Amino acid sequence: MHKITWTHKVQYYETDQMKVVHHSNYIRWFEEARVELMEKIGCPYDKMEEKGIISPVLEVTCQYKQMVRFGDTVEILAWISSFNGIRFSLSYEVYNQKDGSLCTAGTSKHCFINAQGKLISLKREDPALYESLKKLCEE
Amino acid sequence: MHKITWTHKVQYYETDQMKVVHHSNYIRWFEEARVELMEKIGCPYDKMEEKGIISPVLEVTCQYKQMVRFGDTVEILAWISSFNGIRFSLSYEVYNQKDGSLCTAGTSKHCFINAQGKLISLKREDPALYESLKKLCEE
Amino acid sequence: MHKITWTHKVQYYETDQMKVVHHSNYIRWFEEARVELMEKIGCPYDKMEEKGIISPVLEVTCQYKQMVRFGDTVEILAWISSFNGIRFSLSYEVYNQKDGSLCTAGTSKHCFINAQGKLISLKREDPALYESLKKLCEE
Amino acid sequence: MHKITWTHKVQYYETDQMKVVHHSNYIRWFEEARVELMEKIGCPYDKMEEKGIISPVLEVTCQYKQMVRFGDTVEILAWISSFNGIRFSLSYEVYNQKDGSLCTAGTSKHCFINAQGKLISLKREDPALYESLKKLCEE
Repeated sequence: MHKITWTHKVQYYETDQMKVVHHSNYIRWFEEARVELMEKIGCPYDKMEEKGIISPVLEVTCQYKQMVRFGDTVEILAWISSFNGIRFSLSYEVYNQKDGSLCTAGTSKHCFINAQGKLISLKREDPALYESLKKLCEE
Repeated sequence: MHKITWTHKVQYYETDQMKVVHHSNYIRWFEEARVELMEKIGCPYDKMEEKGIISPVLEVTCQYKQMVRFGDTVEILAWISSFNGIRFSLSYEVYNQKDGSLCTAGTSKHCFINAQGKLISLKREDPALYESLKKLCEE
Repeated sequence: MHKITWTHKVQYYETDQMKVVHHSNYIRWFEEARVELMEKIGCPYDKMEEKGIISPVLEVTCQYKQMVRFGDTVEILAWISSFNGIRFSLSYEVYNQKDGSLCTAGTSKHCFINAQGKLISLKREDPALYESLKKLCEE
Repeated sequence: MHKITWTHKVQYYETDQMKVVHHSNYIRWFEEARVELMEKIGCPYDKMEEKGIISPVLEVTCQYKQMVRFGDTVEILAWISSFNGIRFSLSYEVYNQKDGSLCTAGTSKHCFINAQGKLISLKREDPALYESLKKLCEE
């Protein structure tokens, strides 16, 4: 499985009064890593949306294991864990750079829709992206 | 199971360029409803934190079924689905007020820790809150 | 000057590790009140955008006078302070409901553009909205 | 005047349904650059807060000149524009990396308070930080 790493410096505005990163922000960090992954495989979201293909989120899960604080920098690993031409899933792991500990793990599920909101088969609509994603999953 | 309802008017800043509510915001709406629920059962978070009891999120899940847009108002149902004195789980459902459709469903898991970050037994630390939560689950 | 009041319950996710509302959120609350004001005068943003009229923010200012905390509810007053058919300005005041103290004051400036991003004269493009805004400023 | 540059890749969750970055996020980017500046001059916020010195925002202003979109990367310039031992001001400029255009300009004003919320004189409380800031302004 091909994994990418996205580095994120924790920002003050991401903390809450518990003095740790608010749990909703990890969902955003997963997106940061997902955007990076799509760029790395040659299918950036902005180019995809220009072609009229949108990839909404169908499901997210997130397990919080270690708190992350302002002053920390995290590395987010992301990889495609499944893909069937219609739907795909990603997995994520967030590591604290200061000690290498696993802080958070999560998943997201996605499909592809067109501008009219209709589910599309990537194989037919964008064969190049289809092959890229398929290859990534087989690696 | 005792359920509360929290009404939220969708804000412009909650949308993204897909012209729908960004998926991370539902995790925040779950929190809005959870805060309301804790108030309703007489254990508001601010009072709990004043007593030195913090209730971090251990896990969240969210399934996205229907997109929600700016101009919509949603009703978030929340209820405690399990509680064992150490950990508790909540379930959430988000309904669009305009047609009553179920847009999102989710869950969150929590524990109780003290100011030093140590896991606590609510039965010992705050018997009143323990009884409130226990009663809610049995109803 | 016709003023509207928008009530906002402070949310946990709006706090930061200083244990107060993060300063960027007041800019969002101004938007909440602005959206309410546009609805009250019969020109809601979603209807305006459906007609192809967009109203971007040209400038914001915000003075922070009293900190607002989780557990507080605020009332945001908003009113149109100037309008010349091309641009308009709003003023905002945020009051803490618990003691009536003024917490924040601010302003925003806006124009009207069409879907192509071109500046438009509201008098020509939407005479009804033009008259509503003009009347509000003269009151 | 010593200026620092902070690079920020625009994220999908920072956009709104106008298909541009929501205006409130620039206030957060200013903070990102401010945090970077404080680190560069040897006075990072997390170390300052550990010593019990907090630096709240008293005022922000922001002028929006060019819209920034998902797919863009911006460079935020930040510098201390005034400092009198009690209060200090910063100025910010946001440039789009793709064409070097100035997108946003802004300012923020700050003071120093202790853990009890009382205004402090930096010269007395933290002479090292006082000298760093003073020197930066004279350069």
